[in-house]
Amino acid sequence: MTERRRDPLTGEWRMFARHRQDRTFLPPEDHCPLCPTRPGGPPTEIPLADFDVVVFENRFPSLVAEPPSPDVAGSELYPVTPSVGANEVVVYSADHTLGLADMDAARVARLVAVWADRYAELGGRDEVAYVFIFENRGVAVGVTLHHPHGQIYAYPEIPPRPRLELDVAAAHLVRHGTCVVCDVVGRERADDVRVVARNRSFLAFVPFAARFPYEVHLVSQRHAASLLDLTDPERLALAELLQAVVAGYDHLFGFPLPYVMSMHQAPTDDGQHQAISHLHLELTPLHRSADRLKFLAGSELGAGAFVNDTAPEDTAGQLRAAMARAGIFTGAAG
Amino acid sequence: MTERRRDPLTGEWRMFARHRQDRTFLPPEDHCPLCPTRPGGPPTEIPLADFDVVVFENRFPSLVAEPPSPDVAGSELYPVTPSVGANEVVVYSADHTLGLADMDAARVARLVAVWADRYAELGGRDEVAYVFIFENRGVAVGVTLHHPHGQIYAYPEIPPRPRLELDVAAAHLVRHGTCVVCDVVGRERADDVRVVARNRSFLAFVPFAARFPYEVHLVSQRHAASLLDLTDPERLALAELLQAVVAGYDHLFGFPLPYVMSMHQAPTDDGQHQAISHLHLELTPLHRSADRLKFLAGSELGAGAFVNDTAPEDTAGQLRAAMARAGIFTGAAG
Repeated sequence: MTERRRDPLTGEWRMFARHRQDRTFLPPEDHCPLCPTRPGGPPTEIPLADFDVVVFENRFPSLVAEPPSPDVAGSELYPVTPSVGANEVVVYSADHTLGLADMDAARVARLVAVWADRYAELGGRDEVAYVFIFENRGVAVGVTLHHPHGQIYAYPEIPPRPRLELDVAAAHLVRHGTCVVCDVVGRERADDVRVVARNRSFLAFVPFAARFPYEVHLVSQRHAASLLDLTDPERLALAELLQAVVAGYDHLFGFPLPYVMSMHQAPTDDGQHQAISHLHLELTPLHRSADRLKFLAGSELGAGAFVNDTAPEDTAGQLRAAMARAGIFTGAAG
Repeated sequence: MTERRRDPLTGEWRMFARHRQDRTFLPPEDHCPLCPTRPGGPPTEIPLADFDVVVFENRFPSLVAEPPSPDVAGSELYPVTPSVGANEVVVYSADHTLGLADMDAARVARLVAVWADRYAELGGRDEVAYVFIFENRGVAVGVTLHHPHGQIYAYPEIPPRPRLELDVAAAHLVRHGTCVVCDVVGRERADDVRVVARNRSFLAFVPFAARFPYEVHLVSQRHAASLLDLTDPERLALAELLQAVVAGYDHLFGFPLPYVMSMHQAPTDDGQHQAISHLHLELTPLHRSADRLKFLAGSELGAGAFVNDTAPEDTAGQLRAAMARAGIFTGAAG
């Protein structure tokens, strides 16, 4: 069973993939499927002795290029469609323990180039409307493999959250004649108090209305709709700032902070979205303190209304202080 | 700091309440603040030797009747408002260990009557637009007190998820002349395969496009916009079916399944929402199997697109089987 069903109460499409229940779950390190295949060792997903960055199709996908027919018949009230699209795995390096914060910046820049390449290739497919690059890091966010890696979902329509952001940005453009994310960047630069780190091309800040205590948005300072609009120096700047923020997370409480990284870019359907799409990465760690998680419960899951027990101005300061202690260059005055 | 900020990228209001960081966290049973105050013992939140159901204002609220002024100045891009509204705690009984499934049905029916009373009272306040009754159960969903209890949030506007459901229901009404939830009830009765339990007034089923593997919706079989529209026998029927489903959860894997219960009813602002509001309870357990949780990660948090690794038709059958093993009357044929 691999199919998509639309919820009649919200209009949201959801993905069903029963075979994913059997996916590999936290295997021991010597059976890591994302490590290189060692001579004489068991075969892994990657039949190479060494590699830089590797992308392959997820073995337990919820979206595939040639999906089977749905198990159930759809109707107008309960629409059902094949799970067309793609799920890819992006392995950051051959090293089982080398995370984003510890790589050299040139390697992270190559990862950014790979992301841009996959965005272009997947987005160029007729059946793909939205390419979503993300990373789940840490057991607390449900990671089933420790080897540093990210994922790419290529959806056949614009999914709910990017859809909402585009609608809000379109209304803002009509009303003010500007890109709302550009306006946010200007305001964060002016206020400065929520800025965590900055360089010539990107700005990292705890958003004014953050959902999570240590949420950080990493935003292109000039209007760029996707990774494809970045110059090589801008891609390097993105790599450097992403690395600085993740290193800051690792130093905040003295352990690698579990997080979800979500990259929002322009849809790749036929629509004209350039003016209302502004590349940004949303990093959402789940911790609200060293020993407490922020759980999504009644207000968040049932009402969609987030409660944040911290002030973004405070948590931005804590992140800056952690980065200063670790000697990470942030360019932020605070 | 207690204030509400609107996110410029999504238009969603979020609640900030820094004092909540210090809230009571899993106290030992003999210091439970939700137990009756025992003679000679420490004072609890409830200065009574015994009680049936008790409602009081949350000591660590994110919404209050007379909120302080916000800490920061708002702007058109970054609106800020006082956290007006209410957060209430509903303690289900004086017994520290007596959960919904183990109470007698008359007691659960009294709880339903209390919910209806609070919905009417809070909804009658000028500043309240939406009354949201919910329960978080289990440490896995972030519960900080074990004593069986639920909560009520009275929001000053209709929060995002109910707002979305209302918009979808309004479009459905225009197009088909019917309530979408009434149509779903009819379809679930006809298909039968996802029905978990039923009685004369309510239907419990795993939704066709469930977000969570063991999600169950408990829906009034006739169109009723809120608890206030139910007759006394209907309230008793709701109590009995809620109890049956929770007892089924407890027998599914042999431990009390952590869940969030969210009740969706008509808004209480001045709008005319009766025709597009249909009372339903959404129960969303986090487990996808006895020893695995369904985590919200990249696709859910960043894109708003849920992946479900199970077929709703299968999980409904598993829940029916668990209820049958435990001798719980469900009225469901399967």
